This record gives sequence, structure tokens and C-alpha cells, in this order.
Amino acid sequence: MRVLALLDGTIADPDTPLVRADDLGLSRGDGVFESVLVVDGQPRELAAHLERLARSAAMLELPRPDLAAWERVTRAVIDAWPEPGELVIKLVYTRGPEFGDGGTTAYALGLSIPGAAARKRAAGVTAAVLERGYDPAVVDRAPWLLLGAKTLSYAVNMAAMRHAKTIGVDEVIFTGTDGTVLEGPTANVVLATGRSLRTPPPSSGVLAGTTQGALFRAAESAGWNTKVEPVDRSELARADGLFVVSSVRRITRVRVLDGVDLPDSTDLAAELTGLYESEY
Amino acid sequence: MRVLALLDGTIADPDTPLVRADDLGLSRGDGVFESVLVVDGQPRELAAHLERLARSAAMLELPRPDLAAWERVTRAVIDAWPEPGELVIKLVYTRGPEFGDGGTTAYALGLSIPGAAARKRAAGVTAAVLERGYDPAVVDRAPWLLLGAKTLSYAVNMAAMRHAKTIGVDEVIFTGTDGTVLEGPTANVVLATGRSLRTPPPSSGVLAGTTQGALFRAAESAGWNTKVEPVDRSELARADGLFVVSSVRRITRVRVLDGVDLPDSTDLAAELTGLYESEY
Repeated sequence: MRVLALLDGTIADPDTPLVRADDLGLSRGDGVFESVLVVDGQPRELAAHLERLARSAAMLELPRPDLAAWERVTRAVIDAWPEPGELVIKLVYTRGPEFGDGGTTAYALGLSIPGAAARKRAAGVTAAVLERGYDPAVVDRAPWLLLGAKTLSYAVNMAAMRHAKTIGVDEVIFTGTDGTVLEGPTANVVLATGRSLRTPPPSSGVLAGTTQGALFRAAESAGWNTKVEPVDRSELARADGLFVVSSVRRITRVRVLDGVDLPDSTDLAAELTGLYESEY
Repeated sequence: MRVLALLDGTIADPDTPLVRADDLGLSRGDGVFESVLVVDGQPRELAAHLERLARSAAMLELPRPDLAAWERVTRAVIDAWPEPGELVIKLVYTRGPEFGDGGTTAYALGLSIPGAAARKRAAGVTAAVLERGYDPAVVDRAPWLLLGAKTLSYAVNMAAMRHAKTIGVDEVIFTGTDGTVLEGPTANVVLATGRSLRTPPPSSGVLAGTTQGALFRAAESAGWNTKVEPVDRSELARADGLFVVSSVRRITRVRVLDGVDLPDSTDLAAELTGLYESEY
């Protein structure tokens, strides 16, 4: 199932072409996006998603997005969604056509959530550590690398996920050249040790996770300690639990990392999922 | 002026939307492209462009492109182009819509060449050296980084060109973390010293340049020495001539690098341009 809405709220046919051949989002990956989870008609972390959309747009020097309009179009997709259950809404905002008087391209696309996401959440996943090829120290001094912006230029993220499939694992955890953990191609990484949660910092060029943020907020309220700080690659296998978290994955535990079984974190995943769900 | 043709040769209206909201070229920058210069009805280096399109597609695990069809669609755009003079044809090949029975998206878009390109070629350009943030040694061991593939995920290239504008220069020359020269965001870098031309190697993750290749071929025929080998950043200002070369720029000399005047390479640029043009 797909439901497409233009930024002005118009519902459009998702099978009908929407963008021109010269749209810079298409020809140059020059745009930003968000993926918002909707459960029982409620978008989760919508404010955080919209704030991040605005931050990404600013990093690309796109016109400042009208966040009220983006909130309305999100709700327009929810209202038009014909089924009960969950969906994910992709918000896509590009620089628009290269030629003509142009203006930006902006739409929201509601999509069914693949059944595999829930199955993997229940069963846990296997993962491999892959190099992302940059030193986190470059982030501040080279803003043109757009590290930390959620851009449409995701070919590397997709190639890493294909590589994962080729080597027989479900997920990827990227590391920097300094040996620290970054993020997954489409997820954040969270470690649990005792009553403490950790995730790598946005200053290392990773996306500030909306689901990770919700989980940490809930965990703090429940008395957990949370830290957003560098995590060394060697710490991944030593944690009580290692998780990939995203709007679609929610809290998914990693069972096997680089072929090595990790400590059983089934109960921990259930506890953290309970905390996260308690936010809604 | 724009002329759009689908891969089957059909001429289409470039103002009419062509791709769906869920096209992976749009939502993930998941595709490849080429820009082919056409002068007096003749596409330049078409075989080299098509070979590179196929190499890029292979790196992204896209279905092998039908190069005969791509050649035909290139000629269809040329035949439909209503004006004399030059154009550039963008060949765009994406993974296609994410949902449905899909198939890939493939089209050729003919575009007028901005007058600024010829003016900059005549006057020379200013350039700044910017970090690209990776070590060339990572290229071989991390193929998922797609270094050397000409993908649609060009947000970083576009951001670097915007940064250039912000700091008041025309062009960017990227360097790796090892201090070697890489390429420009949309051009190759060539140095001339005596009767010798050098350019950094594709093994460092730069694109194998079609215009650079033609120039080197012509220069070799004329008795020049050519080397495709690592170039240290410190060598840029010491060369007799520093050039950015691409299908649209052809051979454009860099006059000023990081605010420092370079040796006058006006005559050298004219000589190299003569060699390059002699290929056609």
C-alpha cells in the first residue's frame, strides 16, 4: 500500500510520475528526507523528525522548510491511509528542477511496513562491522561532506546493505578510521551495559536518532543512565546488549556480530522496547 | 533548451514529470549517470562514457546496461536537438521504482551548455583545495563506499561547489587524508610540468576521466609523457600548469589556487586544448 501527498496536502496517484528528469533530487541526490513511523494513527517523534528535516535542509542550504506544512501533509497521509495498523511516511524535500522557475519538490509518501521488520525485531539480527572510511575529526572542519545530514544521496548506505546481504548478515555497523562506532546505514547503534545506555554522538557525523532519542528519554525517566559519547569498536561485543534502532526497526537486538554470538539480550530488548513504547 | 528521450528512443516532454515518488534514484540516489559533450552533432568519447556507465552500474549491482540502446538514445537526442552548436547529454540510469514490478529507469537529457563554461575556459578559474575526508587506501578494501563510481548521490559534490562559491572561488580540488590530490567535484585534475602530464589514478577513488583520457591520448601522440599516478598536494602550485578537465569544461586552467597566483599557463592551456581538439 502506498499513499502519496504533495506538500499542499493534495493526494496524488503514487503510480503517476511526480518529478521531472532534471529534478536535482534525482540527478544529484540533492535533497533531504525523513521516515516517520505511524502507529494507530499517531506519528511518532514527529517534532524530532521535522526538526531534523530542517537541520538537514540547512546543511544543504535548501530553503527553510515550512514545518507546519510538513506536519499537515504527514497528517493528510495518515487520514488517507485506508488500513488499520502501522505505516511509515517518507518526507522528501529536494532542490527541485534544475531549469525553469522551479521551486523545490516536496512530498510525503506513506508506505506499508515490510513484515520482515517485525520478524527481525522478534528474532534479533546478525550484523557485520564495516568501515565508513572517514575520521570523525573531519566532521567539524569539512561541512561540505554533509556528515550528519539525512540526504537523498544514500547510494553508499544502500551498497553497504547489499554487501551485508552478500556476506549473509542482516545489518551493518559502520566504524570510523579512528576505530569508533558510528551508525548503521539506516539505523542508530545503542549499547546497554548494566543500567546504562550509550550511543555515538552526532559530532562524529552520525544522524541524531529520533527513535534513539525517544528510547533514551524513556530510559532516563525509568532511572537508567544514558550517555551520548564515542564508543570504541572493541566495546560492541562486550556490552550486555547491542541494538540497532530506527523508526521502522524500533529496538532490534543484534544476536551475532561478525560471526560471533553476543550475550543473549532477549530480556533486555523486551525491557527497552517496553520503555520505548511507554512514550506513546 | 532541453531534449528528453527515453531509453527506447521515444522523445518526451522534459517539463512533464518522468519518475515516480518511489524511484530509488530519487529516494536513495541509487543510480548512475554520465555527461556526454556533443560538438557539431558528434558525441565525444561516447564509447568511454558508455564503458564507464557500465562500470559504475556494476559497482552498484544494477542490471547490466544495454550499451547499444544507450548509444541509440544518445543519437536520438542529437537528432532531435533543434539548434546548431554544442550540448551536453546526461545519461541517467536508476534502480527504478521501489514498489511494483518496476524495472530500471533510464533516460537521456540533452541540455544547453551554460555560457559560463566557455567564459571560464577562456579566462581561467580560481580554485580551493578541500578535504574529501577519506584515505585512498580504503578504496580497494571497502567497495561499498562506491569510490570511483559515478553515482547519482552527488550531494557532497554539490555542497563542495556551493562552499567554493561561498569562499569566492570557481572550482574545488579534493585531497585525501594522505595529502594526495584526488579530483574536483565534477572534474578531473591534470598537472603539466615540462612535456609531461599527470593525473591521480582511479585506484585512489577518483573517476577515470573521459576528457582527461582523450587529452592524454592526444598528448602521447604528440610526444608528451603522461603519467597516471599519485600527486601530492604540495605539487599543485609547483607545476607549469594546473587544469580542471571535464566534458563541459574541456581543458580549463587554474589561475589562482587557495588565493595564490599560479604560473601563467595561458599558452600551455591553448596548446593542450589544441591537442585535445585534434582528436575530433
